[in-house]
Amino acid sequence: MAARIIDGAKLAERIWADTSEQVAELARRGRRLKLAALMVGEPPACRVYARSQAKQCSRMKIDYELVQLPAESDADAVTDRIDEMNRDPALTGIMVHQPLPSWIDMPAIQLRIDPYKDVEGVNPANIGMVFYKKPILAPCTALAEVELVNETDMQLRGANAVVVGQGAIVGLPISTLLIQQFATVTGCHIATRNLVEHTRQAELLIVAVGKPGLITAEHVKPGAVVIDVGINRVETTDADGKKVSRTVGDVDFESVREVAGAITPVPGGVGPVTVTMLLRNTVEAARKQMARDR
Amino acid sequence: MAARIIDGAKLAERIWADTSEQVAELARRGRRLKLAALMVGEPPACRVYARSQAKQCSRMKIDYELVQLPAESDADAVTDRIDEMNRDPALTGIMVHQPLPSWIDMPAIQLRIDPYKDVEGVNPANIGMVFYKKPILAPCTALAEVELVNETDMQLRGANAVVVGQGAIVGLPISTLLIQQFATVTGCHIATRNLVEHTRQAELLIVAVGKPGLITAEHVKPGAVVIDVGINRVETTDADGKKVSRTVGDVDFESVREVAGAITPVPGGVGPVTVTMLLRNTVEAARKQMARDR
Repeated sequence: MAARIIDGAKLAERIWADTSEQVAELARRGRRLKLAALMVGEPPACRVYARSQAKQCSRMKIDYELVQLPAESDADAVTDRIDEMNRDPALTGIMVHQPLPSWIDMPAIQLRIDPYKDVEGVNPANIGMVFYKKPILAPCTALAEVELVNETDMQLRGANAVVVGQGAIVGLPISTLLIQQFATVTGCHIATRNLVEHTRQAELLIVAVGKPGLITAEHVKPGAVVIDVGINRVETTDADGKKVSRTVGDVDFESVREVAGAITPVPGGVGPVTVTMLLRNTVEAARKQMARDR
Repeated sequence: MAARIIDGAKLAERIWADTSEQVAELARRGRRLKLAALMVGEPPACRVYARSQAKQCSRMKIDYELVQLPAESDADAVTDRIDEMNRDPALTGIMVHQPLPSWIDMPAIQLRIDPYKDVEGVNPANIGMVFYKKPILAPCTALAEVELVNETDMQLRGANAVVVGQGAIVGLPISTLLIQQFATVTGCHIATRNLVEHTRQAELLIVAVGKPGLITAEHVKPGAVVIDVGINRVETTDADGKKVSRTVGDVDFESVREVAGAITPVPGGVGPVTVTMLLRNTVEAARKQMARDR
């Protein structure tokens, strides 16, 4: 029996509707939201992302400001600007577009963002607060994955989970969130010997590596929930021999769906939920600030 | 063949000698170290700890100040005092004695300590910086465990490690440090089903639960390295039928030493190394401040 497809787009719509309702409620209480995105120079990928973000904020009735600094800015210029944004009471959310210029140390910048305005949840302090089970704002992708798992009937408590890929922004935070929901979590990565021996034990398998086709049917325990965080552009040839480019995950969807119990597609799985999570965090940030300043 | 006993006291002595040499070198460069320990009220366990700490600092030629606040202090009084300590350039290290009064939220206090003076490595920002592989000051117990593993000839890269107990101060940070040294790490805890199935796969087994005798020979893979973080007082009866109290770990030492390749004893394993690690972090803090302010 083929796996249930977990529909990220549909889930994102529900979160969107709920978030939108919360924005309206805050507006009724006199609290307007404003998200500022800092960009140094103009990396092409950032420009596209910023435009789509501006559009989403406008639909959600969140004010949006793109703060652009010159490409040659040094770390001090960036931190000074962030300090200013931290102090501005009208600004309720701050995010920083990546990549920054190579001479700027990203974690040092992230450490500077007010944890209560850090809507991406990337300030090391916010990651640490997840450790302490007192999250202020948690990383969006990790939050998105938990929401997707909650779409299935999986009980996290006591479940064996394997997280392949242990980066600071996705793999490690999701491992922590899952442990705090009492899953038994194994963190695998490039140096793991016999990956398949680990993944085949997983009732929940989360893959965040960035390597198309890494996970095939033989890696998956029958009935497992599979969450594919990878977003890879690959070139293939269509029936007419023409080169086409498409987006795939780290999981070989066609073979794995025959084995898994539930699976997220790429595109249409983790991606849309993560994007919506940034907006939900923007609302959450405003609420947390109001509670703090009360 | 019985396991090699990893001698924590001896390792602590070596770290002590090295740290002491660094204190002398900083003194030659005109940098005197001062550790301040904040205590609210006078919890009995803290008093003993503070006295032993004062003695150690004096031997190490680190100035030491015990900062005492009244038992009825509120969170504002504590954070105000920490802000003062953060600003004092003569103070190079800060720690806060636990427990705080029940009405004070510990992570909120820890978040306030300057990450560059946080010698216990408990500020959530410092935990997050470990995630980002840019540690400023890491949690002492987790650092101690890595040092103890390095006393064996275990290669962490690719090794299967299991960490039983996933608290914020020990289990979670050590899991992160091990993953960053490219071990494959499974985090187990109270809700883990079939603990023995996980632990028997472990080439490195770290136990930080606080439950005497939790791990017995059947849990351990032959030849594994076993690090016992538990410190439990238990009452037993001696040969004459007299009640005696002694300190044991979470590992049943006598049975496990017959199976393991190497094992830390309790007492004399993790304990003395952790205590010394606080002093090493105090030196590290001063160095990091000098680098930051250069």
